[in-house]
Amino acid sequence: MNKQIILKNRPEGLPDENTWELQNKAIPEPKEGEVLIQHHYISLDPAMRGWMREGKSYIEPVELDDVMRAGSIGKVVTSNNHPKFKEGDFLTGWGGVQQYVVTNGENWYPVDPSLAPLPMYIGTLGMPGMTAYFGILEVGKIKEGDTVLVSGAAGAVGSIVGQIAKIKGCRVIGIAGGAEKCKYIKEVLGFDGAIDYKSEEIYDAIKRECPKGIDVYFDNVGGEILDAALSRLRMHARIVICGAISQYNNMNDVKGPKNYLSLLVNRATMQGMVVMDYAKDYGKAAKEMGGWLAQGKLKSKEDVYQGIENFHDTFLRLFSGDKMGKLVLKVIEE
Amino acid sequence: MNKQIILKNRPEGLPDENTWELQNKAIPEPKEGEVLIQHHYISLDPAMRGWMREGKSYIEPVELDDVMRAGSIGKVVTSNNHPKFKEGDFLTGWGGVQQYVVTNGENWYPVDPSLAPLPMYIGTLGMPGMTAYFGILEVGKIKEGDTVLVSGAAGAVGSIVGQIAKIKGCRVIGIAGGAEKCKYIKEVLGFDGAIDYKSEEIYDAIKRECPKGIDVYFDNVGGEILDAALSRLRMHARIVICGAISQYNNMNDVKGPKNYLSLLVNRATMQGMVVMDYAKDYGKAAKEMGGWLAQGKLKSKEDVYQGIENFHDTFLRLFSGDKMGKLVLKVIEE
Repeated sequence: MNKQIILKNRPEGLPDENTWELQNKAIPEPKEGEVLIQHHYISLDPAMRGWMREGKSYIEPVELDDVMRAGSIGKVVTSNNHPKFKEGDFLTGWGGVQQYVVTNGENWYPVDPSLAPLPMYIGTLGMPGMTAYFGILEVGKIKEGDTVLVSGAAGAVGSIVGQIAKIKGCRVIGIAGGAEKCKYIKEVLGFDGAIDYKSEEIYDAIKRECPKGIDVYFDNVGGEILDAALSRLRMHARIVICGAISQYNNMNDVKGPKNYLSLLVNRATMQGMVVMDYAKDYGKAAKEMGGWLAQGKLKSKEDVYQGIENFHDTFLRLFSGDKMGKLVLKVIEE
Repeated sequence: MNKQIILKNRPEGLPDENTWELQNKAIPEPKEGEVLIQHHYISLDPAMRGWMREGKSYIEPVELDDVMRAGSIGKVVTSNNHPKFKEGDFLTGWGGVQQYVVTNGENWYPVDPSLAPLPMYIGTLGMPGMTAYFGILEVGKIKEGDTVLVSGAAGAVGSIVGQIAKIKGCRVIGIAGGAEKCKYIKEVLGFDGAIDYKSEEIYDAIKRECPKGIDVYFDNVGGEILDAALSRLRMHARIVICGAISQYNNMNDVKGPKNYLSLLVNRATMQGMVVMDYAKDYGKAAKEMGGWLAQGKLKSKEDVYQGIENFHDTFLRLFSGDKMGKLVLKVIEE
């Protein structure tokens, strides 16, 4: 059978037990020119909360009663004369939260499981890694010597943002929740400083860690942390708006950055980004990131949970922060 | 005597009668190499409210008991062997709200009263005009065919922003307060549309006037109008943060733009600007603006009030909106 997570209700705040339904469907059969993929891993990302919301955004919302959208990676178990993909190939794409998917292969990309662990292809070598790469380089426009502040710094995107900034010669401060994550980003990832937003007063801590101010702030969280970062900008600073996880469960009453006039005082720029815009350059980025991984300059951490039945509980870890690195759900049963 | 307006107290909200004091001082005497200037006109600008506030900004605050800072224009009445300026020269600079000023001439620029009325040199050919020019061209990066929305559209900056955008082939919508100003920007300045924020629901009105969305929003006001503009951005839109007059009297509780995540959805940019950064190009801009004025492509309107005693009441017109075009105070007594 093919276990699927179906979107049943649009939640107001945090998703709850009425949001999803686990369904058992027959495993679909590929038509001529299609493949059947058995998923090994599903990518769990904060952006998924946005796709559950009705209305215009950068991508169509997930419809009620549809399989929840998600990035995924799996193996071709049946190829019905597909022109490119054969049985045994590993592919990554938008397979959704389910154990099997049939596709004509459009927007699916082959990966080599001998070069990297499968979960890394939906993390550092997938959307989160691409988001970090293009966000900090193309939008943040970092230069050697810049002071770079990143929130969600132990997460799938933030951890890569900070490491790329280190590779490029920046001074990097990360904001994360809890002593363990703060220790990790400093001692394992090599950040120059860490701020524990759960135990520190954020304004004071940013002042302490960025005494000369911030050249680039990479924002994954929004809310008070964005406001605090705005209060310490240097001239011509750049703020990359990548996400706002603190606001995603309360989008009817988003906290606007009340310190936004710091943009004026400091001639600074706040710019939004969506990773899909850089799709034509994913290959180049993956190659460079792969090189850094091979040289040990870039470390990738995946936090893998088990079982599609645990999708809901695992998904909520994105918002509680109770995970380290890229959150991944293993859905293949062994 | 030299009548001066002195900053006596830093107001919390709108300045009141305790904020300023009118003083009579002896007319100062220029030392060797200095000139004595008799002011004709003082420029009244929203930015002055910011300079009255303590603390770091893009310029030092006015100190208590000092003459209130302001742009000004006047005539040299005594030159004590100044190397460049002689009696009878007209100069513009930062003379403050007073009838006479002594200076060594640094940061004062000569103007020709036969080419334009004096008040225009502190308006369209002065700081407000330069702000409009560099803001819409260098920060807004307008292109032919763009839909440009500007707030404070009948004001010193906004009226020029909109007219430059028209010259560059944009579709221009202005937001102003009251039917008279709306009629003025459409019928006299040639804007394509007008929104009266005092009588219209701003979200609906922006939707009506910008059905395809906004490419560039030039913000002079902040607050709810900024939020409404954010809700209608087109892809890759640019927001120029020039000012936030709706917030200037309540800076301890600024309304942050809660729709700022529209920057992400639309890959848009919000950038602050301060006109002083473009000082080296003022000459080139003034020349181009002068050409447009001469050809009748650009219209300049100054709203001139009389008497330094009326400084306080006149200044408040910036916030009530009870003025049309550039607000100017004539301080020479005839």
